[in-house]
Amino acid sequence: MLSKSQIKLITSLKQKKYRLQHGFFVVEGTKTIKELLQSKLTLQALYTTETFNIDAKDEILISKADLKRISFLTTPNKALAVFKIPKPKPINLNGMIVALDAIRDPGNLGTIIRLCDWFGIKDLLCSKETVDCFNPKVIQATMGSITRVNISYVDLAAFLSKAEPPVFGAFMEGETVYKKQLPNSGILVMGNEANGISKQVEATIDEKISIPRFGDLQATESLNVATATAILLSEFRRS
Amino acid sequence: MLSKSQIKLITSLKQKKYRLQHGFFVVEGTKTIKELLQSKLTLQALYTTETFNIDAKDEILISKADLKRISFLTTPNKALAVFKIPKPKPINLNGMIVALDAIRDPGNLGTIIRLCDWFGIKDLLCSKETVDCFNPKVIQATMGSITRVNISYVDLAAFLSKAEPPVFGAFMEGETVYKKQLPNSGILVMGNEANGISKQVEATIDEKISIPRFGDLQATESLNVATATAILLSEFRRS
Repeated sequence: MLSKSQIKLITSLKQKKYRLQHGFFVVEGTKTIKELLQSKLTLQALYTTETFNIDAKDEILISKADLKRISFLTTPNKALAVFKIPKPKPINLNGMIVALDAIRDPGNLGTIIRLCDWFGIKDLLCSKETVDCFNPKVIQATMGSITRVNISYVDLAAFLSKAEPPVFGAFMEGETVYKKQLPNSGILVMGNEANGISKQVEATIDEKISIPRFGDLQATESLNVATATAILLSEFRRS
Repeated sequence: MLSKSQIKLITSLKQKKYRLQHGFFVVEGTKTIKELLQSKLTLQALYTTETFNIDAKDEILISKADLKRISFLTTPNKALAVFKIPKPKPINLNGMIVALDAIRDPGNLGTIIRLCDWFGIKDLLCSKETVDCFNPKVIQATMGSITRVNISYVDLAAFLSKAEPPVFGAFMEGETVYKKQLPNSGILVMGNEANGISKQVEATIDEKISIPRFGDLQATESLNVATATAILLSEFRRS
């Protein structure tokens, strides 16, 4: 049985305000939970309809009906876990870094975190306007990658203005990425879904790059920011 | 005012069965509707809270409350349009073609349609198990690209077994795409989100390709199929 206070705490974690206040976030789905249990994250509680065979103290067996009461999903999985939000580690300025300027869609952020993991990007910087990475929809989309990428929320324009060049930015009117000599390290900035990179951040960009369009030039509007990030990271890594 | 039969027809179009039966599909959002109005698609009816200044016969001004009754969205936009499902055109076998083997997620299919549009891919083949491209969530994700890509549902294994080589397939254990000489035309097959390319389709593949992983080899599981498609199409086009 779940207590009222447990239900209240868990459901409050849908909102960033309460995640910050309590220092916890929610993960759903057996597979992702198992992956997070193997990471350095600290489990606060595991609510599950089937035992995980872990330390009994942390595991609370509940009914499907109870899971439905606390789940954020329309069709709940078999388990929901509450983990402590980890402290971000210092940013490693020597590697390749991705920086996001006001990415709003949780699915896009989740996909970009998964891409960073795939391409061995250790640090992801997010402007303060970017969606919270502990948003349940972000966690769902990362497929466990959240444990392997160090995510820091920073004043992006201020950070980049002091960063070592080169700072690359994705712009519709940038230079074709296929023709550029790309370094092994540097910062790649991706902009907001609707408005691209903001004026303040644009002022800190050393090199504007773009992905050439092969379709109808009049009609096709833009690439989704997550797919554009996929192509640009592939370009940095292949060279 | 909306009649009961209008409401019944429109809300039934959420389901593939009724889309096939009636031959109609639904589009929401002023921007996407305007884009579709400029295409060769045939409008059946436009339900809107603000006039589009088009032929009055096709436009039905409704209240926000009525829009909420027919909308598939939690937060309805200003308009909902019903279009006729177009007949697929013959497949052009001379260009670059993308083929999908049982893609289930509407967001993934929508993103892949948008990518085809960007990279000038005129034909997209879908196995019969692939999610319907007139699913409202697919239409939403295509951002209007659905009008510029010819989508055909086929028996994929049968089609590919008769196709001219080379047929490329994305496999985890494939040859690194960065080291391959890629042609300007050919067929690129992408597999199901969980299971990849099926055995029957695999038997028709001439060349298995993969995107190298740069992150932790033990942990990072896979790339999302839409981001993998983005990277592979970029590789075909850049060469």
